[in-house]
Amino acid sequence: MDVKSYMAELGQQARAASRAMAAADTGAKNRALLATAKALASARDSLLAANAIDMENGRSNQLDAALLDRLELTPERIDAMIEGLQQVATLADPVGEMTDVSFRPSGIQVGKMRVPLGVIGIIYESRPNVTVEAASLCIKSGNATILRGGSEAIASNQAIAACIKQGLAAAGLPETAVQVITTTDRAAVGELITMTEFVDVVVPRGGKGLIERISRDAKVTVIKHLDGICHVYIDEQADLDKAYNIAMNSKTHRYGTCNTMETLLVHSAVAEEILPLLAQGYQQKEVELRGCEQTLAILPQALAASEEDWRTEYLAPILAIKIVADLDEAIAHINRYSSQHTDSIVTENYSKGRRFMREVDSSSVMINASTRFADGFEYGLGAEIGISTDKIHARGPVGLEGLTSQKYVVFGDGHIRQ
Amino acid sequence: MDVKSYMAELGQQARAASRAMAAADTGAKNRALLATAKALASARDSLLAANAIDMENGRSNQLDAALLDRLELTPERIDAMIEGLQQVATLADPVGEMTDVSFRPSGIQVGKMRVPLGVIGIIYESRPNVTVEAASLCIKSGNATILRGGSEAIASNQAIAACIKQGLAAAGLPETAVQVITTTDRAAVGELITMTEFVDVVVPRGGKGLIERISRDAKVTVIKHLDGICHVYIDEQADLDKAYNIAMNSKTHRYGTCNTMETLLVHSAVAEEILPLLAQGYQQKEVELRGCEQTLAILPQALAASEEDWRTEYLAPILAIKIVADLDEAIAHINRYSSQHTDSIVTENYSKGRRFMREVDSSSVMINASTRFADGFEYGLGAEIGISTDKIHARGPVGLEGLTSQKYVVFGDGHIRQ
Repeated sequence: MDVKSYMAELGQQARAASRAMAAADTGAKNRALLATAKALASARDSLLAANAIDMENGRSNQLDAALLDRLELTPERIDAMIEGLQQVATLADPVGEMTDVSFRPSGIQVGKMRVPLGVIGIIYESRPNVTVEAASLCIKSGNATILRGGSEAIASNQAIAACIKQGLAAAGLPETAVQVITTTDRAAVGELITMTEFVDVVVPRGGKGLIERISRDAKVTVIKHLDGICHVYIDEQADLDKAYNIAMNSKTHRYGTCNTMETLLVHSAVAEEILPLLAQGYQQKEVELRGCEQTLAILPQALAASEEDWRTEYLAPILAIKIVADLDEAIAHINRYSSQHTDSIVTENYSKGRRFMREVDSSSVMINASTRFADGFEYGLGAEIGISTDKIHARGPVGLEGLTSQKYVVFGDGHIRQ
Repeated sequence: MDVKSYMAELGQQARAASRAMAAADTGAKNRALLATAKALASARDSLLAANAIDMENGRSNQLDAALLDRLELTPERIDAMIEGLQQVATLADPVGEMTDVSFRPSGIQVGKMRVPLGVIGIIYESRPNVTVEAASLCIKSGNATILRGGSEAIASNQAIAACIKQGLAAAGLPETAVQVITTTDRAAVGELITMTEFVDVVVPRGGKGLIERISRDAKVTVIKHLDGICHVYIDEQADLDKAYNIAMNSKTHRYGTCNTMETLLVHSAVAEEILPLLAQGYQQKEVELRGCEQTLAILPQALAASEEDWRTEYLAPILAIKIVADLDEAIAHINRYSSQHTDSIVTENYSKGRRFMREVDSSSVMINASTRFADGFEYGLGAEIGISTDKIHARGPVGLEGLTSQKYVVFGDGHIRQ
């Protein structure tokens, strides 16, 4: 079968399954999740065997060490997948929630009901545990899903998919509610992101290149996460102990995450006091500093920052530092260079905090807190399929609710329009 | 200046103005609306003079009577624009609303804050009052907007735009918060819907052709409304008086509106009783009936419906009728042929009503109410910029809230991630 027909068949099956998933009750969805967990536990040996094939192919294809590490399944990683499924089963079901129900002067009662999106395509790379994570969130939110993992993980993903199918069947739900694309032909992705009749939303999880390519070519709506160029602004009226801790934590807690600070903004009135302390802290962590001219005057050991630095997500122990004259300059810099992911102000001043919260146009805006908190688990979403830097639909960490929509419901008793 | 540079300039100005509009307080936005109302009242003569130019050009370009009627400004229509502005000023400001604020185990407090989308492009045809309507909703929701009306209404729209600029200036808001495109070059639309750096959302208001063209070519997110193929399903356990009234009202209250019923589904057990009564009612209103085979057996005067009829938005006194065996067939027919606009069930049976509400995948789902209620005013939104048949972001009638998004806000006190 050619790729186009193959994908259309997957799409038709997913669309049909999405109807059943939307109507499935919470108990059935939870039973599917727990039965999948059980199936994974029973299939440990075959999962490890399938993964060994991928690892061997990966090594002979000379994948780099980082990629091989992400690709590897271990007994501990299988345990984590099982725990993840159990946790999603404990989350509240967003589907069917009715809100804002009120009577109107005409006598009808109007409200909103939360409903699944339908069919969600998810495109990701290497880590096989994403297969379980993504499938579990789609199942719980009443969606059908078509998963496209990396070709390097295909044996692992097929083995995991078999367990998910067992789980769905055990709960009386259609096995086609979760389908893993079995061809490594890249044309399959092209079909997935353009067959609007079968797919409602696509979530690409991966590097910037992947996401840009998919956003450019997609006809289906994309919930996307591009860069995480996050800022901390230390205000003139900051508590400098808090500022120190937040600036250190935001940069050095982890370097490779999207909610890591990449640029530090410091009010000129406190720069001479706080920057040398921070520079010492960063030096201990071997963080390279790149500063504006004023910064270099205070920290001669820093490198000179270029325009390019303000636009760069380092994902590495490198930090750009800029001294600003006031809150206006800080907000203007952030609204210009931030990727609208997460930005934080450190201040004790009520009015400045209030202005920053309102005027910074990012998906997460913080006061006196580390940017590292921008995360579905820390926000209490229970799970996260990604962090959206879009403005439309889901913004910020996307959990179960981000995989749903709302429809209007109207209750009458024979009401007609006058 | 070429169209590309002209549109980029408009876009830059709109982006800059959107920052000021997002930060503007409710009082200033209301003052701008009321000052615009005053400016329109003072400019009656020049508005009518500008409109006379459009009308004359329209007549010499041989626009049809319906189009000319929509194009015409009368003193009453100017009054209606003024009242509309005053009404939007009384609506609650959605911007800044904080919801779901709660403490997390880490000690941070997390919530959501409602924020404007940014810059909204609106593309519409003939009726000049849309210029005021669209501008007022964008102003109140803290957005900047770029308006592209029909070339046939350009003089009227420019005259109205001058009043809006006066209103914005009187309230100390940037005049560039509302910009009307002054060129009739169609390339301007192409720029508007693709300049993602300056425009966040596009709302096309007009015929199906316009909306399909824009959806196909847009790079910017489109809040779109395609067909309104709405259904009423009369269940076996319907109260037949309610069914009669709802079926009559849904079809005959107005023919040209998107929430008008186009297909009537009737349970076979009640078809012989209700259909002849309805046929009489429809005959009095001169509604042409097109039925399935079973319908024709009961109503020999009806025409035979083809497959095409189930897919057609007549926007005319024509109704397709299909007899179904049960609720399952009704839901399946709707989920297959409905445009996901509005569908209603008439039943006294609790379980069937509940299933219909849950399983019909449309932006408005009703029980025992006329489809004609699907409307921003009837739903209490206070105003409406359109009715979205999309699943993402705004669904159903789109009012002020549909022109906003939410960002996460995090309140800490020096909190860092462990």
